[in-house]
Amino acid sequence: MEDGVERISSSELSARMKVTASQIRQDLNNFGGFGQQGYGYNVKYLYTEIAKILGIDRQHNLIIIGAGNLGQAIANYANFERRGFIIKGMFDVNPRLIGLVVRGIEIRGVEELEKFIVENDVQIAALTIPKTKAPEIADRLVKAGIKAIWNFAHTDLQVPDDVVVENVHLSESLMRLSYRVCSMQDQKEEKARKLEAKKAEKTT
Amino acid sequence: MEDGVERISSSELSARMKVTASQIRQDLNNFGGFGQQGYGYNVKYLYTEIAKILGIDRQHNLIIIGAGNLGQAIANYANFERRGFIIKGMFDVNPRLIGLVVRGIEIRGVEELEKFIVENDVQIAALTIPKTKAPEIADRLVKAGIKAIWNFAHTDLQVPDDVVVENVHLSESLMRLSYRVCSMQDQKEEKARKLEAKKAEKTT
Repeated sequence: MEDGVERISSSELSARMKVTASQIRQDLNNFGGFGQQGYGYNVKYLYTEIAKILGIDRQHNLIIIGAGNLGQAIANYANFERRGFIIKGMFDVNPRLIGLVVRGIEIRGVEELEKFIVENDVQIAALTIPKTKAPEIADRLVKAGIKAIWNFAHTDLQVPDDVVVENVHLSESLMRLSYRVCSMQDQKEEKARKLEAKKAEKTT
Repeated sequence: MEDGVERISSSELSARMKVTASQIRQDLNNFGGFGQQGYGYNVKYLYTEIAKILGIDRQHNLIIIGAGNLGQAIANYANFERRGFIIKGMFDVNPRLIGLVVRGIEIRGVEELEKFIVENDVQIAALTIPKTKAPEIADRLVKAGIKAIWNFAHTDLQVPDDVVVENVHLSESLMRLSYRVCSMQDQKEEKARKLEAKKAEKTT
């Protein structure tokens, strides 16, 4: 859409997304299908429909609990607001942070949490606090009626079935990376060994 | 292991991990299998073997490029070092940041990047810079011999096949959360509608 493209075929999408064209058609068909045989997809229409599916055509009010580096990094990321995620407030226990303002958002004490959630119709809470504090805060969030927790704390949270938890566990991501580096290394060594073996075979 | 447990069965693991016992056995068998029928798994042995698989029994030297809030959040997360990921240096283009020290790590100018990577045997680079700058820096990293990029920039990087890229795209995570909240909402409304319909049926 940014490139001024008006319509696109599933095979053109496939080349850009590195997913097979048939997978793309199948996935979109699951939501009703938005293309026409021989015409492809109208880009603007597809964009609007996918935005509806993802729910980013609506406004979601969000708070950040934990105003450290990670919390501030999220607060400073303006792109979230373009997708309808409005950061309403930030919270911390550190008296040196309370009262500071990050990108127009005031940092408040956690004792104001419940009242703030109700008064500002907050649906989502980003949790960027140490794992020892996370379960207690999660309980308070659930009781205050929060619908989703974006969990950056390095622990799994126990919440009722109708509350969504989306985890961002950075250490898991780093271990995945480590595993892939090691597998790559092993493959290279295996290849080198086979090559050596072949050479040895030829010379004998 | 922290709880002093010496051995554990796949069904006990299953209860803790919310994965079926047969899935756990199957997954571990893919790596050779570490348990004994009727005995279960020796916890310490399993921990050591999984650490080997993930490659976290070795030391990985890491640098962070981008010393903003996100870069500093990563630098401050001491747990990574416990897993063998040693943060050797941080880099930025901002002259106000260059020379500062975060948890004992000096922030350097990006012009020193290539020399530093070679001299410090750096394998992994965390990229916490804006997406417009990411491709250029990624190219320089690859040429300097980096093995893996931990990519927090909101763009997909083009690298050779033997360089690992592990993406942490926060906006994708937030959209996944949004989608799940909306699906949950839809399910609730659907349920309510069905209940209404049933009630209406009874009264007629």
